[in-house]
Amino acid sequence: RREICVNVFTVSDTTLINSKSPHLSSCLVRVRCVMGSLMGMEWYCFATLGVLTAFLSFLMDLSVAKLLRAHQWLYSQLEGHCLLQFLCWTLYPVSLSALSTSFSQSICPFSAGSGVPEVRTILSGVDMPHYLSLTNLFAKYVGLICTLAAGSTVFLGKVGPFVHLSTMVGAYLNQLCTVLRGEKERTEGAMLVVAAAVGVASCFGAPISGVLFSVEVMSSHFALKDYCPCFFAAACGALTFHLLSMWSGEQETLQALFQTSFSDDLPFYPLEIPVFAILGLLCGAGSCIYLFCHRWILLFIKTNKILIKVLSTEKALYSAMVVFLLASVTFPLSAGQYMASKLTIKQLLSSLLDSRQWTSQSHNASMVLQPNLCPWSEWISSGNPYLTLGFFLFMKLWMLVLACTLPLPAGYFMPVFIYGAAIGRLFGEGLAYVSLNVVYLDQNRNPINPGGYALAGAAAFSGAVTHTLSPALLALELTGQSTHAAPILLATLVANALARSGQRPSFYDALSISKKLPHLPSLLKVCPRLSSVPIGKVLGPRGPVLERAAGPTEVQQETKECYVSLSLLLGVLKLTRCHILFLNMTYHYFIFQVLKKQLVDMCSIQPVSVQLSPDTTVQEAHGILSVLCGESLFVTERGRLSGVVTWPEVTMKTSKL
Amino acid sequence: RREICVNVFTVSDTTLINSKSPHLSSCLVRVRCVMGSLMGMEWYCFATLGVLTAFLSFLMDLSVAKLLRAHQWLYSQLEGHCLLQFLCWTLYPVSLSALSTSFSQSICPFSAGSGVPEVRTILSGVDMPHYLSLTNLFAKYVGLICTLAAGSTVFLGKVGPFVHLSTMVGAYLNQLCTVLRGEKERTEGAMLVVAAAVGVASCFGAPISGVLFSVEVMSSHFALKDYCPCFFAAACGALTFHLLSMWSGEQETLQALFQTSFSDDLPFYPLEIPVFAILGLLCGAGSCIYLFCHRWILLFIKTNKILIKVLSTEKALYSAMVVFLLASVTFPLSAGQYMASKLTIKQLLSSLLDSRQWTSQSHNASMVLQPNLCPWSEWISSGNPYLTLGFFLFMKLWMLVLACTLPLPAGYFMPVFIYGAAIGRLFGEGLAYVSLNVVYLDQNRNPINPGGYALAGAAAFSGAVTHTLSPALLALELTGQSTHAAPILLATLVANALARSGQRPSFYDALSISKKLPHLPSLLKVCPRLSSVPIGKVLGPRGPVLERAAGPTEVQQETKECYVSLSLLLGVLKLTRCHILFLNMTYHYFIFQVLKKQLVDMCSIQPVSVQLSPDTTVQEAHGILSVLCGESLFVTERGRLSGVVTWPEVTMKTSKL
Repeated sequence: RREICVNVFTVSDTTLINSKSPHLSSCLVRVRCVMGSLMGMEWYCFATLGVLTAFLSFLMDLSVAKLLRAHQWLYSQLEGHCLLQFLCWTLYPVSLSALSTSFSQSICPFSAGSGVPEVRTILSGVDMPHYLSLTNLFAKYVGLICTLAAGSTVFLGKVGPFVHLSTMVGAYLNQLCTVLRGEKERTEGAMLVVAAAVGVASCFGAPISGVLFSVEVMSSHFALKDYCPCFFAAACGALTFHLLSMWSGEQETLQALFQTSFSDDLPFYPLEIPVFAILGLLCGAGSCIYLFCHRWILLFIKTNKILIKVLSTEKALYSAMVVFLLASVTFPLSAGQYMASKLTIKQLLSSLLDSRQWTSQSHNASMVLQPNLCPWSEWISSGNPYLTLGFFLFMKLWMLVLACTLPLPAGYFMPVFIYGAAIGRLFGEGLAYVSLNVVYLDQNRNPINPGGYALAGAAAFSGAVTHTLSPALLALELTGQSTHAAPILLATLVANALARSGQRPSFYDALSISKKLPHLPSLLKVCPRLSSVPIGKVLGPRGPVLERAAGPTEVQQETKECYVSLSLLLGVLKLTRCHILFLNMTYHYFIFQVLKKQLVDMCSIQPVSVQLSPDTTVQEAHGILSVLCGESLFVTERGRLSGVVTWPEVTMKTSKL
Repeated sequence: RREICVNVFTVSDTTLINSKSPHLSSCLVRVRCVMGSLMGMEWYCFATLGVLTAFLSFLMDLSVAKLLRAHQWLYSQLEGHCLLQFLCWTLYPVSLSALSTSFSQSICPFSAGSGVPEVRTILSGVDMPHYLSLTNLFAKYVGLICTLAAGSTVFLGKVGPFVHLSTMVGAYLNQLCTVLRGEKERTEGAMLVVAAAVGVASCFGAPISGVLFSVEVMSSHFALKDYCPCFFAAACGALTFHLLSMWSGEQETLQALFQTSFSDDLPFYPLEIPVFAILGLLCGAGSCIYLFCHRWILLFIKTNKILIKVLSTEKALYSAMVVFLLASVTFPLSAGQYMASKLTIKQLLSSLLDSRQWTSQSHNASMVLQPNLCPWSEWISSGNPYLTLGFFLFMKLWMLVLACTLPLPAGYFMPVFIYGAAIGRLFGEGLAYVSLNVVYLDQNRNPINPGGYALAGAAAFSGAVTHTLSPALLALELTGQSTHAAPILLATLVANALARSGQRPSFYDALSISKKLPHLPSLLKVCPRLSSVPIGKVLGPRGPVLERAAGPTEVQQETKECYVSLSLLLGVLKLTRCHILFLNMTYHYFIFQVLKKQLVDMCSIQPVSVQLSPDTTVQEAHGILSVLCGESLFVTERGRLSGVVTWPEVTMKTSKL
């Protein structure tokens, strides 16, 4: 441990020697030494990342709740004035979403959308600095608050942007950590993988599904060295999130965000297991319809000339118009009453997950009047909950697809999760009705629990839409309901199998392809034959090549990176301005010495550790790149350099094949 | 889909054309076609793997339970005859463990131990066919039943060998699948990764922790393409296991194996969270002591001359002697009464996890007399549960370390899990006593739940011993207790941090190193500087090299695989006997044609896709090997072959550095 300490001192001496206040620097060195003796600096960064992101998440929840309550208060104050209520109902979200759009677009246009496709691309090794800047963080954070405050009318979520926000915080912390450790080059890889896990964990207080999400979105191979940091940071984030919401008085102790109270002794009958599989099939089929509509609208807004014009100049106007349409449809005094539009997104989810059967309680008028006891009263106020649920599903499908086109920071996971819960609820309510009124099950035994179906439907539908399995675990962690683990997993697997069949792209894949991001796994899903394309067909330019014995004349052209060859590829050479200047000086002033000075005497040549042949498939090359965390690979044919593989270029060229 | 069908037909025609019954073969082809149109053949294999392993697991549980009950019945029948009871108590496990040892050793000596280190080595790409044979499966299965039937005296578990059993089933199914698909070469990689997940999942009915276990034990990178198969097979295994135990009448519906009933409304006070972290620290420290003793005894039995002699010739005798010692110590009429030795392993765990406080109930004599209501009555029968727990912890430490040396099929995870639960229970009971009798907490509020501490201790201790985090999730899935997710994860992380500090090897690492298995991650943990060793230092032999234009004389020496060069490495050439015979024939009979026939005309040369330079570090090479799922890599220097990297050789040589 003392050796480490001394090591820290020596490194820091060289970096801090130039700082202005020697007292501060020596203080910093001492603090760093004490901290470093306990554990590595990067672990403090991971913990800070978790805590910071959870704090951001909590602050966002708090402000969104306040804004939503203001809207509800205003709406209730206008009771009786139908027109005023309509204006209040529509103009509040319209102005908020217009604000969100114009604010985020003016500060950082890269902040629109969920950010998950971009994060996946960054994680697969492509450098996209605009997406990790601090201005983007600010624009996305404020924009997302406005979007969420627009409420269930716009029906957009938080988790996707939070993964993006978390990676931005992670990238910034990584810079800080690099400076603190006195290193020059920084490696972002591990920090960004961890940040993806933290994003989910601190958004829902669900650490394990955060880690699984990170495993799933990471390109093709998950490095085991990131596993413990992921868990550590995610646990820090989730714990902070829970503690903050406890101290604010929302929760009495650490508990799940949407705590349910399903019966423990017989949560479901064994015969219900195949029924859960059928629900999974249904959700899989539903996800295919949803994804088809989503792909269609992505294509439509890219090809329709009017929309292209509006979206390129008047983004805020477009947002306002779309949200006005959505808000008019959901106005509670018109069609909104048949789709429980008064409930916020959180209330929607908790009402759908309630374990009590809606239909059997709907006759009990006294309970309906007490919204605290009966959170689903909005659903049955129109009379028939089946019709309400069906209408909700029908309307929300196109509304959700339309909302996905809004150019503002927004997440698309939570709406899909709730949509799946509604599918499951409808299915479960129907089954409970049938079991009671048609099959006449034994009344003394536990009734069928429609909440369990809602939970399984939510996990299955959102899993099928995103082609992931972590929603199954997320459903368990969100509700703290481990009794339903097996059926939820079953439904999610079945739905995923259906959604993945036939090489259909997932939600994120469709966005990646539409945005032309250099993300190979997305491309491979659409066109699997690309995986066997030899890398020789999609090579990038070779760049300048120097002979080992090159003199200053050859180095004249100022290039940053060269490959040095002596008839065969020897290594990479990074030429700094210094070198070139020196070579030039040598050339100009000491002309007699020039002939002796050769490139090899001036700079050190880094050997190339891995060479590919042109026959390597694109998929193999991708795997090797992701393992080496490198940016470029060299392709040689019989020892001679034939090209350089850099990821964005390869993906661009592959997509043209 | 029709194309696939036709494809299956053509492939099968060529393979089945030689089979004797044409009806059967056409029938098979049709079945395969119908199945293949629904999903790929490998998915059926994954499902079969899950179902088969779960069936094996259930069958084992059933037979072990019967054997244990027989022992208990015999013991209770001898009530009053102290000597006979002693003989019954000791000789039953002695004979069973001697039987287990001699049976497994005589049929397949590779079946001894847990098998997890070997599985890890196989998963990292090393070929060890003896460990995946059917005879090993049989020997391990029967041996394990005997070991488990010896009961809590021997105190060994089931999960490690089950991971091994599952990989054996997986390897066999993979062969079957390859034959069914009509392919010649088989790739085992994916199947074995899936099998590792299935092993845990079908042993405890815990699918998600099975997958996490698989992610953790896989060498350095987890391939995402194995993720869905892992989940699918693990879900099949867990579901089958639950359904079987339901149909056998053990459970009413699908529920956790050790279902607990912690209070839901206030599972723990927020102030208890740092206390859980302290428990994690304690468990981490305990794990260091345990691992130190374990490493010491591994070294001792390898260096002590008497033990070497006994273990090489009289394995059964050694087992019998050790088990006799263990059984005499645990005899319930002597020291055994102070360590609850009458309880089976399952009873031990469920009594430790009970949410009710032992001490407050110990005065209630009426409850103690009813073992059904009070599963922990054995613990308090001696008077003071603290003393019993402390004595249990002290005795079981050396007994467990001793039991690990037994040369029979046995798992070491479950004992460690229970040991951790006992640590946590002691801690929790102490805390509950302090909170009630010293701090005088408000009596109306929920009392502190010692079961939660037991659960956290179990996860933390077993996680620290194995250097994994999946026990945290396993604890949740085993008990169905999601309320304690955050503190359990926290304790496990803290314990892991302590156990991993200072480059100490984990339990499995110590076994790998002691058995000299070519598993690089284990070696790297002991000696981290090895990761930066250039691969050029540990190269294997280059093997024969042929010129591209080589004639028959050069190919005379019969070698299976050659590297073809034309001053630079061109590719690999697999020479079959055919080729060589033909070349020879050409040589002998048509001597005038010889000069024209060259190697390049006869065989196709497979290009080498990836070349390493001698400066590549060992860790990078390991990563690339695990991504490519290959067996060997070529190291070239300026295009010329300087060696071949095969994993076992590199590890052997690295370990000598």
